[in-house]
Amino acid sequence: MKGLQDYYPEDFAHCYGCGRENHHGHQIKTYWDGDETVTHYLPKEYHIALPGFVYGGLLASIIDCHGTGSGSLAIARERNIELTEFNAPRCVTASLKVDYHKPTPIGVELEIRGTIREIKGKKVIVDAKVFANGVMTVSGQIIVIEVPEGFAK
Amino acid sequence: MKGLQDYYPEDFAHCYGCGRENHHGHQIKTYWDGDETVTHYLPKEYHIALPGFVYGGLLASIIDCHGTGSGSLAIARERNIELTEFNAPRCVTASLKVDYHKPTPIGVELEIRGTIREIKGKKVIVDAKVFANGVMTVSGQIIVIEVPEGFAK
Repeated sequence: MKGLQDYYPEDFAHCYGCGRENHHGHQIKTYWDGDETVTHYLPKEYHIALPGFVYGGLLASIIDCHGTGSGSLAIARERNIELTEFNAPRCVTASLKVDYHKPTPIGVELEIRGTIREIKGKKVIVDAKVFANGVMTVSGQIIVIEVPEGFAK
Repeated sequence: MKGLQDYYPEDFAHCYGCGRENHHGHQIKTYWDGDETVTHYLPKEYHIALPGFVYGGLLASIIDCHGTGSGSLAIARERNIELTEFNAPRCVTASLKVDYHKPTPIGVELEIRGTIREIKGKKVIVDAKVFANGVMTVSGQIIVIEVPEGFAK
């Protein structure tokens, strides 16, 4: 099953967080699950803050790209765009807010779940939560904006 | 010249963003410059969002660790702690807010400058700005908390 990021135009598929063409990066994939968006990610063993716990910057990064992916999914749904290679709308982040509620353990696959708080033209606000072993450890809000076609050219 | 992070206790020196012992990570160093804190970082060529521009998650990460480092510097100054190996206070992030004002070009060393907005006991609020070629592209606010001694043991 393909993720939203598999449908980005090639020019927009090089992001370190979510680009399928970035072979150094995290290559996250984001999907609909009903009205929520979902991303899974297993941090590397060296993505630590203090020993045993995931580095907060990685969590912010994954929330960021989950937010842009969720924004793209929301815009595609809003406009009845059937995703195919490579027509996905592409968003960039205007603002990112992350709250760290408790330490996130390393060594388990994280689940990031998003809800679309608002969609208005080219702007989408996404609420996100990170779960480790079913426990919510981090939450965030991402404001994303659709980039104009041809922006990267 | 040593950065704040060179004075962290060994247990606290493994962070992917700023730990001198994390050989996969960014190993940022943070210094006082008068009443401001400063970090420099040159992103890798693959740390991109769209081609030509730095990945927002990396910027959030660097701001995050600049914030924890600035918090530690502020606490050390407040308590008249003379930094030596390895007695630096260590902070963790409670909350991170990042605003992306304009795209940050790849290929130039970034300067992150911080000011201490508030210090109250174990809590420090840091305002940060990211500059590329002297132009401010991103700003953020980080709320950090000093971790208790022995936390990582």
